[in-house]
Amino acid sequence: MRIEKIDLINQVYETLKHNIINGTLAAETPLRQEELSESLGVSRQPISHALVLLEREGLVTELGRKGKMVTPVRAQHLSDLYQVRAELDGLAASLCAQNRTPGLEETLERVLEQGRRAISENSLELLLLADIEFHRALYTHSGNPEIGRIADSSWNHLVRAMHQVLNDASIHQAVWSDHQQIAEAILSGNSEQARELARSHANSSAELTAKRLTIP
Amino acid sequence: MRIEKIDLINQVYETLKHNIINGTLAAETPLRQEELSESLGVSRQPISHALVLLEREGLVTELGRKGKMVTPVRAQHLSDLYQVRAELDGLAASLCAQNRTPGLEETLERVLEQGRRAISENSLELLLLADIEFHRALYTHSGNPEIGRIADSSWNHLVRAMHQVLNDASIHQAVWSDHQQIAEAILSGNSEQARELARSHANSSAELTAKRLTIP
Repeated sequence: MRIEKIDLINQVYETLKHNIINGTLAAETPLRQEELSESLGVSRQPISHALVLLEREGLVTELGRKGKMVTPVRAQHLSDLYQVRAELDGLAASLCAQNRTPGLEETLERVLEQGRRAISENSLELLLLADIEFHRALYTHSGNPEIGRIADSSWNHLVRAMHQVLNDASIHQAVWSDHQQIAEAILSGNSEQARELARSHANSSAELTAKRLTIP
Repeated sequence: MRIEKIDLINQVYETLKHNIINGTLAAETPLRQEELSESLGVSRQPISHALVLLEREGLVTELGRKGKMVTPVRAQHLSDLYQVRAELDGLAASLCAQNRTPGLEETLERVLEQGRRAISENSLELLLLADIEFHRALYTHSGNPEIGRIADSSWNHLVRAMHQVLNDASIHQAVWSDHQQIAEAILSGNSEQARELARSHANSSAELTAKRLTIP
């Protein structure tokens, strides 16, 4: 009985999170419990619980007395997240280069190939998956689990922005040429170069995002 | 009725957290619900809820089938946390130096004075408070709220270690001379120097901690 209840909350939570991140539920959409309860076919209780969880993660925000809404995508927030990510990605890349664990080369090759395929198929969804996987590979192989743990809490927000920014196909080549260079620096064991390339990749993603989000 | 229940969980949570962080509940102490319920004078339900919250924060760990215990202080975990903190502290210090907000000088002077007083009174508790306040001042004045948000999740673990490491009074002068130098670099607007001093301060804290935790 209890497990079913928790499971229902989780299902509602995952569904709403997925729809917020991929933009199906656009920024600032009001989230009315009755409407959600009707459209998802569940009672209001699991909806209310799931909204509290999403609010804690910053994906849902109070809308004054009017209830809750999908958190707006704020350019300043994304710029703050990217500023921190530049340091974490730099650290992860430099650790990978210092400590080339077995499997690292294979993993990087596989993910780079995944990116090339996504570009040739012009699939935004595959491109995003490959992008996340590239960065997660660096966190995993860094040997410091705290980097991935911290990065997890900001990726949801970044992916929301990427859904808007990556719509511009001209960016795809540049992103994956950056990834290629970071991988090469890591595999050649040049940890300072790997750090600098990973930092500047995050900084240019931040600039692209800021440009796209401030131009209407 | 509901608020009272949540309040009770919070009270139990805060009490246990405080005692774990300051070492009253030592690492690896078994946490038996009946005993805790008796010693804190509350029913087992709020205890069980509070333990789940503490487990999520990594302060409580499963002890096989035997129940739960206070998470061991692991040298590797602290070294991972300090490695990330070196980057975040470096970023915060460099941002403070680039963007000297009103009140920054006053705040730093006040906290440095707090540290000097704690040393002269030889009070471990005051020293820890001043130490946390020094670093939190850098996060706050960095202008990037994500830095403080992330740092919060690791400070509980670091403070547990500091309770052991700072027992050695010979370290106090060195810690606060580092803080003084970081503050000077920030106030003179030298952002790269501020970054490097803050990073190396975290790295030497990491080394001190590793040395104290591995020597029995």
